[in-house]
Amino acid sequence: MNKNRLEAFSDGVIAIIITIMVLELKVPHGEDFATLAPLWPVLLSYVLSFAYVGIYWNNHHHMLHTVHKVTGPILWANLHLLFWLSLFPFTTGWMGENHFAPGPTALYGVVLLLAAIAYYVLQSLIIASQGEDSLLRRAVGGDWKGKLSPALYLLAIGTAFVSQWLSLAIYAAVAVIWFVPDRRIERVLVHKEG
Amino acid sequence: MNKNRLEAFSDGVIAIIITIMVLELKVPHGEDFATLAPLWPVLLSYVLSFAYVGIYWNNHHHMLHTVHKVTGPILWANLHLLFWLSLFPFTTGWMGENHFAPGPTALYGVVLLLAAIAYYVLQSLIIASQGEDSLLRRAVGGDWKGKLSPALYLLAIGTAFVSQWLSLAIYAAVAVIWFVPDRRIERVLVHKEG
Amino acid sequence: MNKNRLEAFSDGVIAIIITIMVLELKVPHGEDFATLAPLWPVLLSYVLSFAYVGIYWNNHHHMLHTVHKVTGPILWANLHLLFWLSLFPFTTGWMGENHFAPGPTALYGVVLLLAAIAYYVLQSLIIASQGEDSLLRRAVGGDWKGKLSPALYLLAIGTAFVSQWLSLAIYAAVAVIWFVPDRRIERVLVHKEG
Amino acid sequence: MNKNRLEAFSDGVIAIIITIMVLELKVPHGEDFATLAPLWPVLLSYVLSFAYVGIYWNNHHHMLHTVHKVTGPILWANLHLLFWLSLFPFTTGWMGENHFAPGPTALYGVVLLLAAIAYYVLQSLIIASQGEDSLLRRAVGGDWKGKLSPALYLLAIGTAFVSQWLSLAIYAAVAVIWFVPDRRIERVLVHKEG
Repeated sequence: MNKNRLEAFSDGVIAIIITIMVLELKVPHGEDFATLAPLWPVLLSYVLSFAYVGIYWNNHHHMLHTVHKVTGPILWANLHLLFWLSLFPFTTGWMGENHFAPGPTALYGVVLLLAAIAYYVLQSLIIASQGEDSLLRRAVGGDWKGKLSPALYLLAIGTAFVSQWLSLAIYAAVAVIWFVPDRRIERVLVHKEG
Repeated sequence: MNKNRLEAFSDGVIAIIITIMVLELKVPHGEDFATLAPLWPVLLSYVLSFAYVGIYWNNHHHMLHTVHKVTGPILWANLHLLFWLSLFPFTTGWMGENHFAPGPTALYGVVLLLAAIAYYVLQSLIIASQGEDSLLRRAVGGDWKGKLSPALYLLAIGTAFVSQWLSLAIYAAVAVIWFVPDRRIERVLVHKEG
Repeated sequence: MNKNRLEAFSDGVIAIIITIMVLELKVPHGEDFATLAPLWPVLLSYVLSFAYVGIYWNNHHHMLHTVHKVTGPILWANLHLLFWLSLFPFTTGWMGENHFAPGPTALYGVVLLLAAIAYYVLQSLIIASQGEDSLLRRAVGGDWKGKLSPALYLLAIGTAFVSQWLSLAIYAAVAVIWFVPDRRIERVLVHKEG
Repeated sequence: MNKNRLEAFSDGVIAIIITIMVLELKVPHGEDFATLAPLWPVLLSYVLSFAYVGIYWNNHHHMLHTVHKVTGPILWANLHLLFWLSLFPFTTGWMGENHFAPGPTALYGVVLLLAAIAYYVLQSLIIASQGEDSLLRRAVGGDWKGKLSPALYLLAIGTAFVSQWLSLAIYAAVAVIWFVPDRRIERVLVHKEG
């Protein structure tokens, strides 16, 4: 299995996911700006999910950069990650159309959590395939982001039933944490090539 | 005809198919978890089809790996395969929305069968184009998976009118059979390059 | 302008066009096979358009194969072609949903005609950019297919108001004429490289 | 971060945006040509936006051509640009369905303006990353197009509430200004390679 084709396929799927999410932003029937007002929660959900998918695309790229050989398990773990990402348009739409009601806001976090777990599984399989001197293991290090995020998702899922806005704030905070591209991998790569 | 562009186009079409299937998972209008309940057959259908399309993408890639020259017939056989794959979102949606009723469950198998036949035709054309010492022929060997699958699809199509769950179980079983990437081709390729 | 990126973008757009056409094949609400019956004109339209888009993709690739330098006019002529191709899902859906009524069947031909003209313009610009010893000019030769097709489209557009089935048969016949990949270009390329 | 993957991802997103815009051109229910009549504003909006997205794709490619190293900020600025482009289908649909009513026509310009600003930010970050002897800075020069466009968008946004047709004419005029590919970059590149 060639890494380039795995990257190209993943890029294609992620590009489609990030774009079809906008289809939930349905064109309103009136022509007044007032008809746009009910759309702001949908737009806000879209912005948040756009950021998340962008982050996944970015980190996915950095991670695959360290891969030399694509094994069967890596391939399936990658499809598994794409599966959870493909549910983002659904949970984003449900959350937005219901103005961040508790249930949809919690479900949004559940899918974020499952995508994070799928990412972690993929990362672990790549590290395992690289053996003792795994470049990715060194790059990831203590992986505090990878460990903190699921805990925060769980917190936000529970919080959704108390205060949906606090829950949203936690989702946004996790996005901000990841916003910085994974410089750890960049650093190790540069170090290695230097 | 350059193999890379055939791969890129097929990857694009398959990436779109696997992603637009999720559009059948329509955002419900209520905000209670109860409004999600009727969606489980649609979700289950989506999971099954996601796995099938993933398997096709994977095996398609392995098969094309052995191709050196893309002839006209190979090109059209490839488009023919993509045509049947493009009907997966339709049959998946119909089966899911009707809670695995006999008719839709049978039709789901009919399209699986036609895609399998299209795959077999493509494989045969590639083998024929490679002449006596076909790498793909050696890799495929007795091709027990390729021969067993259509038989199981036929069985499941008939079974759909007796027990839809047994029918579904057969579809899932075929997916599991194919889940393992086509190591035969990998082995022959490794052997050749070794 | 790099030819590879022009090809990749065109492939992406064409892959999306060929796939979203299937969205017009709307999942019916009943579970009986009888609910599928009204869909046959939509399916038939889809098959025809799938073949047409496949043919355009194939010939487009062969044509670009001869290009070395992408000029501004070539780039815009390519976007112009993609524009008309992007209307295929609309005309296909309208023709299918109205069971090949005269108006929609004629409009289907009008867009086929405009796409053919756009293709011809693109081809002419490439030939012009290649100067006296144009590889594409030699490959295309008398270009009887390119000259015959618009005439047949015009005939079919008129015929649609007399017999829609005859009109459809003409569209299908043109597709068959083009079905054979453009061996002329292949031949010239092989000759040149030989 | 590899430039090729950034280009491929951007191309994928732009190809999807340009294609899903056509989904707003909904298939009418009648079979008479008269049922098409109400669609002309949607079609006209689509043509305008198709041209804009084509121009962005073209200029984006020219700009990235000068990039050697993709930094984190460049990556996020690129996603930021894609975000505003992804809202084109929404504003195009709203403007078309409301026959160029003042509000939708103004909003169309607001998103054009925000995309132009995002493009300018991306361009500035690339220039900054290239240091003193920036190839892109020399290519862009005084950047009169980049400075004039936002002013014209602002003018058109205001004009929309006076005369929607004048507003549309301004949008079209800006498209025409950009229609010519950014020869400045081509010239500098040719000069450098010459």
